[in-house]
Amino acid sequence: MKTTVTPIQAKATLPSGFRSAGITAGLKTTGKPDMALFFSDSPATVAGTFTTNQVKAATVRLDAERVATLGVSHGIVVNSGQANACTGPNGLRDAKAMAAHAAAQLGVAPELVLVCSTGRIGIPLRMDLIQPGIEKLVGALSPTGGEAAARGIMTTDTKPKRFTTTFKANGKTCRLTGIAKGSGMIQPCMATMLAFLMTDAQVDRRAMQKALRVAVDKSFNRISVDADQSTNDTVLLLANGRAANAPLKPRKPGWTSFIAALEAITFELAMAMVRDGEGAQKLITVQVKGAWSASDAEAAARSVANSFLVKTSWVGIYPNWGRVMDALGYAPAQVNENKVEIQYDNLLAVQNGVKAGASIARLSKIVAKKAFTLTIDLHLGRGEATVYSCDCTEEYVRINM
Amino acid sequence: MKTTVTPIQAKATLPSGFRSAGITAGLKTTGKPDMALFFSDSPATVAGTFTTNQVKAATVRLDAERVATLGVSHGIVVNSGQANACTGPNGLRDAKAMAAHAAAQLGVAPELVLVCSTGRIGIPLRMDLIQPGIEKLVGALSPTGGEAAARGIMTTDTKPKRFTTTFKANGKTCRLTGIAKGSGMIQPCMATMLAFLMTDAQVDRRAMQKALRVAVDKSFNRISVDADQSTNDTVLLLANGRAANAPLKPRKPGWTSFIAALEAITFELAMAMVRDGEGAQKLITVQVKGAWSASDAEAAARSVANSFLVKTSWVGIYPNWGRVMDALGYAPAQVNENKVEIQYDNLLAVQNGVKAGASIARLSKIVAKKAFTLTIDLHLGRGEATVYSCDCTEEYVRINM
Repeated sequence: MKTTVTPIQAKATLPSGFRSAGITAGLKTTGKPDMALFFSDSPATVAGTFTTNQVKAATVRLDAERVATLGVSHGIVVNSGQANACTGPNGLRDAKAMAAHAAAQLGVAPELVLVCSTGRIGIPLRMDLIQPGIEKLVGALSPTGGEAAARGIMTTDTKPKRFTTTFKANGKTCRLTGIAKGSGMIQPCMATMLAFLMTDAQVDRRAMQKALRVAVDKSFNRISVDADQSTNDTVLLLANGRAANAPLKPRKPGWTSFIAALEAITFELAMAMVRDGEGAQKLITVQVKGAWSASDAEAAARSVANSFLVKTSWVGIYPNWGRVMDALGYAPAQVNENKVEIQYDNLLAVQNGVKAGASIARLSKIVAKKAFTLTIDLHLGRGEATVYSCDCTEEYVRINM
Repeated sequence: MKTTVTPIQAKATLPSGFRSAGITAGLKTTGKPDMALFFSDSPATVAGTFTTNQVKAATVRLDAERVATLGVSHGIVVNSGQANACTGPNGLRDAKAMAAHAAAQLGVAPELVLVCSTGRIGIPLRMDLIQPGIEKLVGALSPTGGEAAARGIMTTDTKPKRFTTTFKANGKTCRLTGIAKGSGMIQPCMATMLAFLMTDAQVDRRAMQKALRVAVDKSFNRISVDADQSTNDTVLLLANGRAANAPLKPRKPGWTSFIAALEAITFELAMAMVRDGEGAQKLITVQVKGAWSASDAEAAARSVANSFLVKTSWVGIYPNWGRVMDALGYAPAQVNENKVEIQYDNLLAVQNGVKAGASIARLSKIVAKKAFTLTIDLHLGRGEATVYSCDCTEEYVRINM
């Protein structure tokens, strides 16, 4: 089957039947936008993936249940500034009230509205500000409201993150739009990542849930930030079927195009998060091959990508491959130091575990770039994995102090 | 049995029969001391613990073999500035040559000299500087050379770390002296920790090896720095028997005093490392109780103690217990968020997983202190563990850039 996906655009052009809004309710002391609403005029099939942290925000518990039991949703109301995590029974009550208030304003059943929160953990939601905020949001809903919504969900993000593409399904042109936030990009990570995906395609519910999980594993779960670790991480995908295509599912026309579009949008959003990592200046691709198994490759790649001594060394321009070797050595993966090979943008730095020919000067030039690739061959098997990381600067500490 | 250990002194007063020296060989661009020698006039029984990293310095491989097969040593020659890790077959050749050169100068067999290196990974040892350095060291050996040796092994340490105590064994007074370095205190940690312990007591070899392992587990392995993670971590204990006591072993007189002295000295050295952690300003004791098992307690304590978002929050003065909850939630340990209780210096901050009564102002005063204790009760069982951590400042990034 031919896959037809248009080039991705850094825009929040909403698919047919979707409207959004972003406003300032007063939850942040900075006065920046702090609420957003995503709404589908007709009910949409919904899929979701959520944090695996044992400590979960009230919104995560509520949404996970609604996605699993109903599988249909009309929209999502979001606030930034307060995470509604570690807020006890009152947290769940507030999350439900938030959904119910939005639902009442929108004229749909309360269970059909999902809720996401992001921000500081442990403080109760300011419902006195959120309720009027919701009314303002509903009034501001617009087919061109994607950009405002992208700003309404930001916390320490310096840039809005939104991408749009289109794809063909049985001759129908469908659009897929993704809007996300996430910047506390350094594991162990608590700064929540949220991503909202909307399409006017009609998609089979179960197939969509599986496809979303795969796409999340290849994108948000590949950045050096374990997307599973926050109390609030949530990815939601709404498909409202306005394109009037036959339901997309595996082996049906258009499925591969839908998958290609979904994986492209989630990947771009994930890369935007790493590039906008708190205090980060560089995007580093850590590619491990020759591992004994695929899971060994992933463990080794994560060990390097998450090492603070590796990340801090990337701030400077010295190609400190010794720290990479050390991080490989303590990874929960089989490593034989005498077989390790490391390349910086295809320039051989380490062979058989020791310095190879490349001069420090040439390697330094690569490490000084805004983006480079570290290719590590363990020479033990056929396992491969790639993880995306960023450098750790003094700014990271200042942001989190 | 009564345990008699004198109060610990922050001095490097060597036990009978030991001599030390510290000098500058020119390995560091800063011109600071970079070599040390620890020597026992008579052969000493030796015990050791080493890094478990799969990537190991040549010195670690050499020492581990010598300690295991011979069990006797005359002394240790140390250099700082270059780690002699990831240096291939030449690294082992250089480590052996270093030991052999020192042994020849000291008039003992080459296998009786151990070698430690600490510093940058992946560059070959400057043997042209090390050989004359060894000659200088041997000439400078002195019973009062402990202080100079403590400085000769430092890298990013801002203070020398050395402690001395005495204890009684069958009426004989024995002395135990510990000298250590270690400052790259934030896991994943590569900045090597080295500790050298010397006693004039006579100690049974096997009992001493077991006792050392237990003492290391209670001290260096309890700081938030996994002492197992560097390529070079080494702890060596030499006992030369000059005090002429009957060999110390379990259930013999003096054994409990020896253990008390050993554990006190290793603990003080470990605490000195955390306090001198790269860029650190505070010592935080993370105590977990009520865990389902002891290993769960340790996993939970390490998850909190190693979290960079928790560590960076300690720089400021806001008691960000939400980040502590999050780190507990992703720990590989059973956690029920509704049962978690957190105290800051016995002041209740969190009960049943949500904010308890204590005001932010009162908690902030505790977090602003140079040292405080976080007590976390998971209310699931009887498992307990304590880990010692430090804050992560902008200075940490500057040091490691």
